[in-house]
Amino acid sequence: MTMSIRIEKSGALKPKPDEDKLGFGSYFTDHMFLMNYDTDKGWHDARIVPYAPLQFDPAAMVFHYGQAIFEGLKAFRTNDGRILLFRPDKNAQRFNRSCERLCMPEIDEETFVEAIRAIVRVEADWVPAKAGASLYIRPFIIATEPALGVRPSKSYLFAVILSPVGNYYGEGLKPVNIRVESDFVRAVRGGIGNAKTAANYVGGLKAQEIAAADNCAQVLWLDGVERKYIEEVGSMNVFFKINGKVITPALNGSILDGVTRQSVIRLLEEWGIPVVEAKIAIDDVLAAVKDGTLEEAFGTGTAAVISAVGGLHANGSMHVINRGEIGELTSRLYDAITGIQAGKLEDSLGWTVDCG
Amino acid sequence: MTMSIRIEKSGALKPKPDEDKLGFGSYFTDHMFLMNYDTDKGWHDARIVPYAPLQFDPAAMVFHYGQAIFEGLKAFRTNDGRILLFRPDKNAQRFNRSCERLCMPEIDEETFVEAIRAIVRVEADWVPAKAGASLYIRPFIIATEPALGVRPSKSYLFAVILSPVGNYYGEGLKPVNIRVESDFVRAVRGGIGNAKTAANYVGGLKAQEIAAADNCAQVLWLDGVERKYIEEVGSMNVFFKINGKVITPALNGSILDGVTRQSVIRLLEEWGIPVVEAKIAIDDVLAAVKDGTLEEAFGTGTAAVISAVGGLHANGSMHVINRGEIGELTSRLYDAITGIQAGKLEDSLGWTVDCG
Ligand SMILES: Cc1ncc(COP(=O)(O)O)c(C=O)c1O
Ligand SMILES: Cc1ncc(COP(=O)(O)O)c(C=O)c1O
Repeated sequence: MTMSIRIEKSGALKPKPDEDKLGFGSYFTDHMFLMNYDTDKGWHDARIVPYAPLQFDPAAMVFHYGQAIFEGLKAFRTNDGRILLFRPDKNAQRFNRSCERLCMPEIDEETFVEAIRAIVRVEADWVPAKAGASLYIRPFIIATEPALGVRPSKSYLFAVILSPVGNYYGEGLKPVNIRVESDFVRAVRGGIGNAKTAANYVGGLKAQEIAAADNCAQVLWLDGVERKYIEEVGSMNVFFKINGKVITPALNGSILDGVTRQSVIRLLEEWGIPVVEAKIAIDDVLAAVKDGTLEEAFGTGTAAVISAVGGLHANGSMHVINRGEIGELTSRLYDAITGIQAGKLEDSLGWTVDCG
Repeated sequence: MTMSIRIEKSGALKPKPDEDKLGFGSYFTDHMFLMNYDTDKGWHDARIVPYAPLQFDPAAMVFHYGQAIFEGLKAFRTNDGRILLFRPDKNAQRFNRSCERLCMPEIDEETFVEAIRAIVRVEADWVPAKAGASLYIRPFIIATEPALGVRPSKSYLFAVILSPVGNYYGEGLKPVNIRVESDFVRAVRGGIGNAKTAANYVGGLKAQEIAAADNCAQVLWLDGVERKYIEEVGSMNVFFKINGKVITPALNGSILDGVTRQSVIRLLEEWGIPVVEAKIAIDDVLAAVKDGTLEEAFGTGTAAVISAVGGLHANGSMHVINRGEIGELTSRLYDAITGIQAGKLEDSLGWTVDCG
């Protein structure tokens, strides 16, 4: 499908922020991609317009009943000046799975990727050149029909906004502590845990506050039924290397199917390193820390790519992993993925898409 | 506390809709109440302004991470022309419990009620005179800070919008069928099921579609852990009369603490009818339908007040309750509550608040 996109350029471009001080999600570019949906016309009026506030009726259903899904991916500048996306087709597929779960209208994969390529091309100057920095891309759909009553909305807005972001941990990989949460639950089988929806984040804020008070950067979520099996970590999937083997929680319906997770599994297979997806009891992981068989632990997600876990806070004490240092495999995966993303390593798996 | 409220009247009032065709949540009045929050100033700039679209940055956190809570209550016109609210203090309290759970700033009870009284006074002409009709009041708070990253927003908007609504079931009480949902789950202990947040509704849309296909108006939710115990019904709490005793699921953290539920329990106590809050297994209820001891079943909620359950659809078949007719206690409760709300019956429990 070729979509026709109307482009209205901004008359006054913003100054670009200092690439050393980008942080995450604080700056937004000059333009945004928008497209509307209603039941009569389907998706229509694809356009790139100046980034500006949008008008919504106070009764717009997104404010009341939570129909809101999103994606997160990045554009990277290569040394030879090209701009690459990392596996946008995977985000497109997950976007549609989220739509389906929340009774929202899907966007075909090609249109989704084309919308992103188009807005990134318009904002090419915003893709940072600094190593480790990138342009974070946030596609989302929200329900706009002004009506009260619990049912799917009849109209929606699809938007893509862009934010230049720094290296998540400033100086590269820095191990973080994670707090095992035993009271609060993020999601449960039969719920919406595997959809990327606003509704999945708000419940976790309280647990995050408690984790911060225990000197932890993130929450490790357990399953909602038995509160025994590991699900994920904050906005990351999680991996453990135990006795030379890598293990990650199997997708069970309440875990987000991360693109970075998929990529890590694939790379490990390529490298001939054993990797399994399975149910993982937190007690087994803590026992492996104790008996020294747990060699490395790391989180995976678009924002930080690979994030070494330095310690697990559980039952009131911190269980230090790999002396709080970054493991060898953790580094190797980080270098491999960020290398492919930035076009520095050969992309033999065909993961990158040129924006040109 | 007395809040100073700036009032800006609309220049062009809308025509009032036909009171026989109001439906639910389709019409909105001429004005709305707004108030802003930021971390420096706290809640400020309370104002009543013409009902109109609001501007939000596309990165406003409500669209991405789900910080959105709401309430629902009604204003009623009495025969002698006064306007009454029903237990708004209960909504104020629940609003703040929702805020607390979702790391959002609370609004003191008095301010909450005063805001509602003020906007309802301005819109007094919108309170329907027709019996059974009322003015539905929707207070809500949404996160407005434009930033990506999972953390509590630093700014919020509190709004109160109003919608004249008809008698929920046109001709008064009409029994509805309810589908027992055994796959999808609304909420789980440790989650946010007892908060009134947008995030709790979106996951249920799919189950609602399936229920509609089975000729059911609502979904009966079971607990997320054992999928065995009854939680609630669509946007209502649920009661069963078995062998002369009334029973309703105990509040367990994943059920909304309904104001109508509280009122029903209180009235039953006043009337000397045994009522218990307990864990209720769906199998026990189905067995009671079968052996004829289940006399009545009804849902409770602000929208429909009391809603007779005519049948439970479970395991592929419909289990008819009380021959599909409205039970005696169900009617008595409906008459009592709607009578107090409309100022027709004596309000000996002090539940109504005059807007004047
Ligand atoms: C809850 C959650 N889990 C896992 C991930 C990781 O997914 P991805 O690797 O696609 O970024 C994310 C998103 O970043 C997330 O929000
Ligand atoms: C999920 C849910 N349960 C129960 C209720 C009933 O609560 P109330 O009686 O306060 O309206 C509502 C709201 O109407 C609701 O949304």
